[in-house]
Amino acid sequence: MRVYQLNGSRGADGLSLVERPDPVAGRGQILVRMRAGSLNYRDLLVAHGRYVGAAPPNLVPLSDGAGEVVAVGPDVRRFKVGDRVCPTFFQTWISGEMTPADGATALGGAVDGVLAELVVCDETAAVAVPDHLSFEEAACLPCAGVTVWAALYGPKPLVAGQTVLTLGTGGVSSLAIQFAHAAGARVISTSSSDAKLEAARALGAAETINYRTHPEWQDEVLRLTDRRGVDHVVEIGGAGTATRSIAATAMGGQVHMIGVLTMGEVNPLALIQWKTLRGIYVGSRSHFEAMNRMIAVHGIRPSIDRTFPFADAPAAYRHLESAAHVGKVVIRIA
Amino acid sequence: MRVYQLNGSRGADGLSLVERPDPVAGRGQILVRMRAGSLNYRDLLVAHGRYVGAAPPNLVPLSDGAGEVVAVGPDVRRFKVGDRVCPTFFQTWISGEMTPADGATALGGAVDGVLAELVVCDETAAVAVPDHLSFEEAACLPCAGVTVWAALYGPKPLVAGQTVLTLGTGGVSSLAIQFAHAAGARVISTSSSDAKLEAARALGAAETINYRTHPEWQDEVLRLTDRRGVDHVVEIGGAGTATRSIAATAMGGQVHMIGVLTMGEVNPLALIQWKTLRGIYVGSRSHFEAMNRMIAVHGIRPSIDRTFPFADAPAAYRHLESAAHVGKVVIRIA
Amino acid sequence: MRVYQLNGSRGADGLSLVERPDPVAGRGQILVRMRAGSLNYRDLLVAHGRYVGAAPPNLVPLSDGAGEVVAVGPDVRRFKVGDRVCPTFFQTWISGEMTPADGATALGGAVDGVLAELVVCDETAAVAVPDHLSFEEAACLPCAGVTVWAALYGPKPLVAGQTVLTLGTGGVSSLAIQFAHAAGARVISTSSSDAKLEAARALGAAETINYRTHPEWQDEVLRLTDRRGVDHVVEIGGAGTATRSIAATAMGGQVHMIGVLTMGEVNPLALIQWKTLRGIYVGSRSHFEAMNRMIAVHGIRPSIDRTFPFADAPAAYRHLESAAHVGKVVIRIA
Amino acid sequence: MRVYQLNGSRGADGLSLVERPDPVAGRGQILVRMRAGSLNYRDLLVAHGRYVGAAPPNLVPLSDGAGEVVAVGPDVRRFKVGDRVCPTFFQTWISGEMTPADGATALGGAVDGVLAELVVCDETAAVAVPDHLSFEEAACLPCAGVTVWAALYGPKPLVAGQTVLTLGTGGVSSLAIQFAHAAGARVISTSSSDAKLEAARALGAAETINYRTHPEWQDEVLRLTDRRGVDHVVEIGGAGTATRSIAATAMGGQVHMIGVLTMGEVNPLALIQWKTLRGIYVGSRSHFEAMNRMIAVHGIRPSIDRTFPFADAPAAYRHLESAAHVGKVVIRIA
Repeated sequence: MRVYQLNGSRGADGLSLVERPDPVAGRGQILVRMRAGSLNYRDLLVAHGRYVGAAPPNLVPLSDGAGEVVAVGPDVRRFKVGDRVCPTFFQTWISGEMTPADGATALGGAVDGVLAELVVCDETAAVAVPDHLSFEEAACLPCAGVTVWAALYGPKPLVAGQTVLTLGTGGVSSLAIQFAHAAGARVISTSSSDAKLEAARALGAAETINYRTHPEWQDEVLRLTDRRGVDHVVEIGGAGTATRSIAATAMGGQVHMIGVLTMGEVNPLALIQWKTLRGIYVGSRSHFEAMNRMIAVHGIRPSIDRTFPFADAPAAYRHLESAAHVGKVVIRIA
Repeated sequence: MRVYQLNGSRGADGLSLVERPDPVAGRGQILVRMRAGSLNYRDLLVAHGRYVGAAPPNLVPLSDGAGEVVAVGPDVRRFKVGDRVCPTFFQTWISGEMTPADGATALGGAVDGVLAELVVCDETAAVAVPDHLSFEEAACLPCAGVTVWAALYGPKPLVAGQTVLTLGTGGVSSLAIQFAHAAGARVISTSSSDAKLEAARALGAAETINYRTHPEWQDEVLRLTDRRGVDHVVEIGGAGTATRSIAATAMGGQVHMIGVLTMGEVNPLALIQWKTLRGIYVGSRSHFEAMNRMIAVHGIRPSIDRTFPFADAPAAYRHLESAAHVGKVVIRIA
Repeated sequence: MRVYQLNGSRGADGLSLVERPDPVAGRGQILVRMRAGSLNYRDLLVAHGRYVGAAPPNLVPLSDGAGEVVAVGPDVRRFKVGDRVCPTFFQTWISGEMTPADGATALGGAVDGVLAELVVCDETAAVAVPDHLSFEEAACLPCAGVTVWAALYGPKPLVAGQTVLTLGTGGVSSLAIQFAHAAGARVISTSSSDAKLEAARALGAAETINYRTHPEWQDEVLRLTDRRGVDHVVEIGGAGTATRSIAATAMGGQVHMIGVLTMGEVNPLALIQWKTLRGIYVGSRSHFEAMNRMIAVHGIRPSIDRTFPFADAPAAYRHLESAAHVGKVVIRIA
Repeated sequence: MRVYQLNGSRGADGLSLVERPDPVAGRGQILVRMRAGSLNYRDLLVAHGRYVGAAPPNLVPLSDGAGEVVAVGPDVRRFKVGDRVCPTFFQTWISGEMTPADGATALGGAVDGVLAELVVCDETAAVAVPDHLSFEEAACLPCAGVTVWAALYGPKPLVAGQTVLTLGTGGVSSLAIQFAHAAGARVISTSSSDAKLEAARALGAAETINYRTHPEWQDEVLRLTDRRGVDHVVEIGGAGTATRSIAATAMGGQVHMIGVLTMGEVNPLALIQWKTLRGIYVGSRSHFEAMNRMIAVHGIRPSIDRTFPFADAPAAYRHLESAAHVGKVVIRIA
């Protein structure tokens, strides 16, 4: 089989397409022919050696993909040949609280990922793809989708009628708009471009704010909420946004910190009036399954910016790096 | 002012329209000119002396109404003259868990209700009416609406993508369909009439079951949910439905027992696989406020079956008793 | 290796000790030399063919046991040779909500159990034994202990200062007294015998009620709680107790229905004032782990009534059947 | 009656003892003869004009006190003459989520406090004192006690067997040790003095760390928890501790930010692995009542460092300012 592997900390330049022996499904495992993958900002960090630490040598990158079961090992009960599946971001986190051991099983970071023609994983480490989704669309979910779901449905979950603030229109934020809208929330979205805000409205945003026009955009959020603030921020962690997000949050509200591009610091005093700053680190298989049920009920389709062929995977990386996208950047594998 | 008062246990025949002195707002109180009230099944029980115990003599009936603040007493901060409000079902239950003391403040049962031209209540015992609602529509919410909200948003709240089962198309169930649909759930509704099922679909039901055609309707629910069952039942407590509702519930699901017409018994063994049977007794002011936020975001309007003039209040009682309605039975007070 | 297997529906008489080939740990599996097992009421039902359905032929009985890892298969990460472990009741339920598929992996019911010298299970299907416990003590936990924990720590968990009612002094109730006491609750316990009530006090009960002396024991519970009732009942499901338990429960309180000997019916109307009847079906590995942390912090030891040698397993069954025990009935395997 | 009032921003020097007319209980109000008050760090900030903004002129300071009901106004139901009560910190926050309007009713900050011989408050704005507590002890609870309770029992509440970290041995931290210990948690406490750590152990700490000896005390916390970290930090917000507290927290754990002396900033990236930073702002009457139930069950007594007579209130302020105390600084009023 052909796989991409990553060496050096040279971004897309570190990717090379190589042959490896076909893997075999052992006891309790499934063999998946990958059909599509999608990129997250984390994949750029991994490729540049800026994610946690340097990547293991010859790492197969990418956490997010979808494919078809082509073989099953002994004792497999959850899947059969022909099933369409997504491997889970953390291969061992089934449900409940994450443990540090789960962190050592993250695809395309701690262990080999899915930018490969064939992938073997435990049957417990995959979920069924909703029927209405293509492989390309399903490939957008394992990290970006699950992260949004885990943000909105934590110990103090989203309730219909609440207000949700999303920042920008990248992969995570696009899904956040769709999910929060489907859950009956009022969504307020920010972006630097009116065209992107138009896209946000098409996805379900009720209100939009151009943060170039409104650099003090938190004031605009307060204005739109009768000075109350929002109940949830899906905070993707751009430079210096956290302090504004906290200011835009209602008493009792939550700022869900996603992602790895967080910069700047926050003054905890800003939280005193019952605001919560909550670190989000993708989610469990159970999050994935609950999200899929919601996606199926609403017929939600992740918004895909552009799809690249397998041979052009490095170009997909470069496209994400340019930050010109709305929605997800996808690689068609087979 | 004119009020209805209730004597004897003779149903609508026990109602008499009398003059009483206008009440005055004391410290911390508001005086409300009632504009509309709505009936609940409980009001029939009270009128027949079958609710908890015999009603206090000369009780002013009705828990649910909406009106306009026409005077405020000293130290009032929450409202001003001209505000549109609904008094809360329990006059002292603000938020959190109900206490037995709150039970002694239920309008139209333990204490005088709202079928009166003027009502005085503590400023803490009322909520603002959402802007888009008429007084008639707002009058449908204090018991029926809040009960549904408290059912769906308990310790294990509704999550978008879950499935909700509603029974019939009366006032509570109509609101349950609307609220669950707005919250991103898939709604399955039962009724004995195809016309009413059509109405249920118009309110947001995705699937409907005629329980005359399908007397073993729980099997139909299981069929529609791939044998999984539903996550929530808004169980209004008709004769013998509880056992079927439990059978139609998924592992981990909840049957929210509403209302006072419950008959029959259930075998607790049917619950063992992580099913929960949960008694619901209206809700708090905080439930009311959260519900109103949701109603405002979605522009939801309670479904009104018919509106009677103040002078014909007894006819409104008789209409509810006939059980021919879809949605709420309303009395216009002024 | 030697195992007990069960045939017919003849209770302890259906047990026979037979030789089977030693099992081998496959990929992701551990081989456990069992050192002790404990009995639950469910094991009697299984032996009598009254549990769910007839047991599979030649079923190895018992869900609860503890032993030592003597071999590990390929790819095992969680355990190593020498570790002391308990297999989990449901072999696939890791955390979060139980699914129907998990039900098909219950030890000593759906699949072979632990009354055997050697047991193979997935590494994900076992937990480490707390250091301070003997194998006999640890063998009391997988069903009885986890069930109590899952009862007390559901969606509306035990809070220090609440009141917990336990019924009787069998294995489940003894652990319930210990766990609730350790969690800072006030425990009220019932029994038919003053000697057993003395034992209950020694385990941590603050108040005790002899239900022979007080057949209307729910009134005594109300008296001891200033008419408020208790916050939690660990209801083990004896005949006709559920209705009394509900009556003894505070507004907002929960009756956790445990076990399989439930008889009688309940009127759901009794729940209306915010009472909840909640089916409990053992628990997940995550429940087990959280419980073990608590047990370790408090140095709790399950109360063992009597220990039988492996050769006398049928006698252990008969002892449990006699219902003369306080605490758990244990079988030493090796 | 005599009251202290505060002018200027001169700390204890701004306090003056003056005569005011006796207040009268209006409708729904109680008149309380204050018997004791206690100081919080917030009272120092108020006295120095560093709390939110400058205090209103002639403000009666102090949020925390206990006294006896000596008169009740019309329509009062919750209390009678002779009852022992504590006014609540926020006079309008009953239960559920705090609202901004509640913030405008904080005793001794937004409105007149309890350093007075007589205080009038709404009957809904007070709680009964547990029987076993003196007025001095009860006076320690309204801010410090309720804050700790609200920290430990939020959306993801303390579970028996978890580990709780407390910082120092002041009023809040002393109560945190007592409450967490009573709730079955393992408590780890830090202090700069071995004598204070001895006091912490007497209150229930299982482990103690001298942060002078261990300036990198977060490493010591990790060592004591097998590298797992703690589940809860009651973070009182001293300079630069938040970052260490986050480092000492387990995946999924919570840092509850209390108090107003927070300095320094935190990098939100440190939270990514499911850690939560949660602002705490005292609590509701419902928190107070639940805490009191727990305090009564366990016979907990707040630890009092020293009691000053009413005439020496300024000396009490100066004593707190010296930071030499262990536990609470109390003023006996009558």
